[in-house]
Parts: sequence; structure tokens; C-alpha cells
Amino acid sequence: MKTKPLILVTNDDGILAPGIRALISVMMEIGEVVVVAPDKPQSAMGHAITINNIMYLNKISTEQDKILEYSCSGTPVDCVKLAVNEILHRKPDLCVSGINHGSNSSINVIYSGTMSAAVEAGIEGIPAIGFSLLDYDWHADFESAKSFIKQIVLETLKNGLQKGVILNVNLPKLKENEIKGIKICRQANALWVEKFDKRQTPQGKDYYWLTGEFVNNDKGEDTDEWALENGYISIVPVQFDLTAHHFIQELNTWDL
Amino acid sequence: MKTKPLILVTNDDGILAPGIRALISVMMEIGEVVVVAPDKPQSAMGHAITINNIMYLNKISTEQDKILEYSCSGTPVDCVKLAVNEILHRKPDLCVSGINHGSNSSINVIYSGTMSAAVEAGIEGIPAIGFSLLDYDWHADFESAKSFIKQIVLETLKNGLQKGVILNVNLPKLKENEIKGIKICRQANALWVEKFDKRQTPQGKDYYWLTGEFVNNDKGEDTDEWALENGYISIVPVQFDLTAHHFIQELNTWDL
Repeated sequence: MKTKPLILVTNDDGILAPGIRALISVMMEIGEVVVVAPDKPQSAMGHAITINNIMYLNKISTEQDKILEYSCSGTPVDCVKLAVNEILHRKPDLCVSGINHGSNSSINVIYSGTMSAAVEAGIEGIPAIGFSLLDYDWHADFESAKSFIKQIVLETLKNGLQKGVILNVNLPKLKENEIKGIKICRQANALWVEKFDKRQTPQGKDYYWLTGEFVNNDKGEDTDEWALENGYISIVPVQFDLTAHHFIQELNTWDL
Repeated sequence: MKTKPLILVTNDDGILAPGIRALISVMMEIGEVVVVAPDKPQSAMGHAITINNIMYLNKISTEQDKILEYSCSGTPVDCVKLAVNEILHRKPDLCVSGINHGSNSSINVIYSGTMSAAVEAGIEGIPAIGFSLLDYDWHADFESAKSFIKQIVLETLKNGLQKGVILNVNLPKLKENEIKGIKICRQANALWVEKFDKRQTPQGKDYYWLTGEFVNNDKGEDTDEWALENGYISIVPVQFDLTAHHFIQELNTWDL
């Protein structure tokens, strides 16, 4: 690529989260950066879009204000749509989302606003990567992630991604020199087992907080969970063709 | 199955939508029915869950009040989680979601609250089906769908679903005798091309409405779009393992 690549940066933790600031700083070393990200935390929004309400875009200035940045009142997926259509007016060469504060490995990919933003870019034909660090702390150490993120982005720009494939990158909570390397993985077959915290309002009405426990019974050494538990960065190629192709033949034997 | 199956019914258009009332009436012919559905429209919520706010459940009475019904202030996915953990205290034999007012074929499966509720049930190991009618009208004719829905549900209860597979059923906007039959399909590779409707508030600030045009360049006769355009009901088996397994080998050749 002769000219600098145009890189769209978004996330789901909000435009002022330390994770996206770290990602922006790495991307500024690689390309021309435009940021469109939610004006408030939008974690666990999945692939939600705003169809029954209006949306605002606000041009903002930050310490990194050599670049164009907009906060958006919509979801992470809305951010990608608005960025492409109303700000860039063309497809960027790459869309990166994150760095998420917390894991998006395994089944978390489905609930994640970070990954849904990347998947939306993929649907629109834009090479896209979601980055997540296994540390929910607002003040997590994103420094250790930077060199790996740069390497993964440069390789993606060099090799390109097949249409319909998005990368889901998760980084363990380790110092840079403790990270053993990068592993290409499949999504572990794990899930959240819910527990609700039932409480009462001051007026005596029941309400619920969602809590839960992550349960992984998939011990495969080719999974993202195995890689992360063993000190590796995991990369899972993700697709948005949800068809369970292997079950079509079986369904054709049903009396329908 | 000797005893009546326990069937959880949910949707994304809200508990009083005509689509879910039609689905409830069919399910009451088949099993013991419990309804937990959003207290307001939650279309296009994707797989969003409520983690930064509280949720309420309200027991309600309707014209079908021989059954247990709860409205929920959360998303469609929250409804499934709350139903299993706080109302049923066990897994139902089946979860059905819908009947959605509008299509969830092709890429719509990813944005759909209706399908995300069914997928959530699938993640939790519950056989699940989402039903959608290609008619956005609140007063759409759901009568024509009923016999087909009953047939699909009875076949699903008889044959069972493989773990990790959920059915995405879309019904064309046709009279019962005009429907040509049921086709097992793959998800068409189509997408929404956005157009934003940019307006100004009375105070002169720009805001946006999301609109768009559905573009299908996938003319495969094995797709859901083809089936629906040609007068068939489409059934796509859907999975939540998003891994693009076919791209793992390629990624292993990268310099990572």
C-alpha cells in the first residue's frame, strides 16, 4: 500500500475509554485515523442498531486531536454505519474496534458490542479486527498489548482478509515479555450460567441484576480459551454466515 | 413425549404484539405455555443484554390468561435468561420466538431480537425456533402461518435439534393456500445498504435516522431469499459457533 491506509477506530466502552485511546495511538503509527465511537459505555449491546430513535454525531477534541473524532449517541454498530456513510463517504481500508476492557473470547463474541462493530464493518466489505484485553479494570495496562496489535494490523493490511471473515483478537492480562505468542484458534464452546441478584426497591418492588459464572467445558487445545489460559494471544476468524450447513441434510429428512 | 411439553414463548415486538399472540395460541394446542416477553418493542436489539441497569418482571393478564405471562423490562435475550432462571427454574422443552412482524431472513438474523432470543435459548441447550412473517404491518395476517408453525414445532419436538443448532423460520406474505411449501435453506449473502435521513432539531442541531435498502446479489436457489421470493417458507439452521473454520489454515501462514 503506497499511501497511508485509512483506518476507522471504534469501540463499545465509549470514546474516552483508555482502551480506545491506546488503540488510536497504535493506529496513528500506521495510517490516517478517523474515530467514531459511542458517547457512553455500550458494552454487551451485541449487534443492536437504532431504528426507533434518532442519533447524534458530535465532533470532539481530545489530547490526540490531530485526528478526526466523533462521538455518537448510537450503538457500536450504528457508529460504523454512520462513519462510513456520513463522515468518511467511502470505505476505510481497515476498521479496528477496541481495545475492549474485558474478554470477548468464546461465546462473549455474540454479546460484545466491540465485536459486533467489527462484524458490521465485515458485512460492509471492510477488513475488520476486534481487540480485547482480559482485564475489566478501567485503568488496565494496555501498553503490553501495543506491539502485538501493531504486528497483527500490519499483517492484516499486508495479507488482506477473505470477504466475510473478521478477526477476534483477545490478549491475556500479562506483561509483554510474559506473553508466549499468538495462536490461531476456534471459538471455545463455553457459556455463561446466569445467576440473578434479586433485590427490592425502597418501595418494595422486586428487581433483578444479571450476574453469572463463565463455564468452559471445552478443553480443546485449539480453542481461544486454552490459548488465553496458557499465556497466548488468541485470534479467532469469525464469520456472519450463521448457517449450520452441517444440519441441512438432517433437516431435509424431516416430514415438512 | 408423554406429558405435555413445556414451551417458553418470547419475541422482540413486545408482549402485546399480535404476532406473539398468534404464536401463543398455536403453542397452547401443543404444550404447557409460559410467556416472558419485552414490555415494549425491542426490534433490532440483536444479542444485547442488560448489564448496566436493573430489570423488572411483571406478571400480566391477557385474553389468553389461562397461562403464565410476564412482561420484562429487558431485551429479548434477557427475557430468556430471566424466564429460565427466575420463573421456570428449569429448562423448557422448547423455546419459540416471534412471530416477528417483518423478515429475519438473510443478514437480518444478526440484527434481530427475535432470533437472538432463540439463539440464547440454543446456547443454554434448549431447542429453539424463531418465526418471522414478511409483513411489517402491526395488523398483519398471522392466521395463514398457524398450520405451518404447528407442523414445524411438532416435527422439531419429534426429531429434536442437534445441540448448537437453532431454526430460523421465515414465512412469505401469502395466503395459506398460496404457500408452495417449506424449503431448508442457507442464509443468503445479502446486506443492508444504509442511507441516513439527516434532519435538524428545532434548535438547528443535526440528527440522523437510520434507513436503508436491502440488497441481495446472492441468487442461489438454496438461499432463504430465493425460497421466500418464490412462495416458500424458508428454514435456515443457525449456529452460534461463529468460527470461520475455513480461514484457520490461511491465518496459520501469516507471520504472527
